[in-house]
Amino acid sequence: MIKTEFTSYIRSLQNEICTAFEEIDGKSVFREDYWERDGGGGGLTRLIEKGPVFEKGGVNTSTVFGELPDPIRQHFNVKEGWFWAGGISLVVHPVNPMVPTVHANFRYFELYEDAEMKKIKDGWFGGGADLTPYYLWDEDAHHFHTVLKNACDRHGKELYPAYKKQCDDYFRNRHRDEARGIGGLFFDYLRADDQRSLQDWQAFTQDTGSLFLDAYLPIVKKRMDEPYNPTQKQWQEIRRGRYVEFNLIHDRGTLFGLKTNGRIESILMSLPPTVRWDYDVQPESGSREANLIDVLKNPRDWVE
Amino acid sequence: MIKTEFTSYIRSLQNEICTAFEEIDGKSVFREDYWERDGGGGGLTRLIEKGPVFEKGGVNTSTVFGELPDPIRQHFNVKEGWFWAGGISLVVHPVNPMVPTVHANFRYFELYEDAEMKKIKDGWFGGGADLTPYYLWDEDAHHFHTVLKNACDRHGKELYPAYKKQCDDYFRNRHRDEARGIGGLFFDYLRADDQRSLQDWQAFTQDTGSLFLDAYLPIVKKRMDEPYNPTQKQWQEIRRGRYVEFNLIHDRGTLFGLKTNGRIESILMSLPPTVRWDYDVQPESGSREANLIDVLKNPRDWVE
Repeated sequence: MIKTEFTSYIRSLQNEICTAFEEIDGKSVFREDYWERDGGGGGLTRLIEKGPVFEKGGVNTSTVFGELPDPIRQHFNVKEGWFWAGGISLVVHPVNPMVPTVHANFRYFELYEDAEMKKIKDGWFGGGADLTPYYLWDEDAHHFHTVLKNACDRHGKELYPAYKKQCDDYFRNRHRDEARGIGGLFFDYLRADDQRSLQDWQAFTQDTGSLFLDAYLPIVKKRMDEPYNPTQKQWQEIRRGRYVEFNLIHDRGTLFGLKTNGRIESILMSLPPTVRWDYDVQPESGSREANLIDVLKNPRDWVE
Repeated sequence: MIKTEFTSYIRSLQNEICTAFEEIDGKSVFREDYWERDGGGGGLTRLIEKGPVFEKGGVNTSTVFGELPDPIRQHFNVKEGWFWAGGISLVVHPVNPMVPTVHANFRYFELYEDAEMKKIKDGWFGGGADLTPYYLWDEDAHHFHTVLKNACDRHGKELYPAYKKQCDDYFRNRHRDEARGIGGLFFDYLRADDQRSLQDWQAFTQDTGSLFLDAYLPIVKKRMDEPYNPTQKQWQEIRRGRYVEFNLIHDRGTLFGLKTNGRIESILMSLPPTVRWDYDVQPESGSREANLIDVLKNPRDWVE
């Protein structure tokens, strides 16, 4: 059964990712909160804080089920229904402004006609991964996108271009006309169709998830010892403000969680630890900061 | 004409408030940005930053007019229309966590049938003021509410209780089931009716605006030299995170500004300068921090 398999997949991925992050941080360890959801299911929140490498990071898994909450019923325009949703979701905010923030999420959703969850009406996968640098090395963006493209290519050459574009379109602070970061992949509603079964999409989603560490860790290792000064730390905190703006104003997942009475501390764990809003910051023309803004305003192709 | 009078009122109130804030800060002065709006009108943004008393504060006035933007047409369910809107809006974030943050806003809106803005279809006042302490002295909350109540009482005994309640209802982080602060006044759509003319509401709005400094400044003076430690500063920054959450998730004014392509830096000037999101912060039972949360969860009556 897909949901049993996927549940065991996300749990083992959570372990693998947390172990790798603890190893690289070398000092802080993840604390764990198990929570239950009124109405069915629960989650395992894991949080690392105040490490030498990771200032704050959360790696969550949850499997929730039951009657469709009001906002979802409205969204799908159905009178009644039951669901199961399982996923892993992570955001990591490094200390060093030379190390990018990363976000990834892999999820499966099933809809049922009956409360016993036996008559499956629909099922789909969704997810993705995206990178938010504060100082940009083109080679890092190239590496991140190349790993994700390779994951996609195994399942179809058309996938990477499509999901890369969806990522650029989705993670956009439209009120500032700039992207949140340099993108990655974003996919949703991957259903069985003429070309692929649901199991094919499961394999695609799990492959992408399993390559996440390959995409991100080499960048952390390469940049975690880069020197930086207080002004560069301040730039990181200002840019983290843009991250907050995206998550609270535009992110469907966050707003959905808040509307459906999710566990607030797990939903807002994605927010950065320290943030600044300075008035009307304009980086000097030709600076690394100005270069970043330019790239965020005009998303690039990072892989040939 | 109301709009001419109100424009000159908000400009002189802006001057008065900025002068008073500069005097009390003693060091920083307001910088000024004049901006114009595509489609008609503009504003005068004034910002004070990094002072010994005020870490960040903005006092804006704007008068904008023209064709109704799409989101407003949808909101009022009209096919076409023209408008004029003038207002003053301010938010001040003090350095010292013992000094509360304050927000106030006073505005007038007119709707027309014609592009020449001669046939007035509707007009109303709105506004209010509210206080967000990080450490609470009951006497400060009492003082703030008493001044606002006195402003209201001159115009009708029923006004304060109604607008105090609307303030508690509006400035609420529903996703956390707590108020943003200890409230104040919130009123909107004050139109001519059987009991009061539009000029009566103008007098009420302007009276409230003119008493703003009486409500807030004595609290600043009383608390600005209170000692505080880094843990208390950290608590202020965590609570400022809740302020950001309210403004970006719930505040109609902010979201409206973002949707109608307002000037981003002026709209988001209300965001605090430095902010923290720590995971699952739970103040110790019986502490001043726990007392604040208790008051925010259960809004009180501050005036007999």
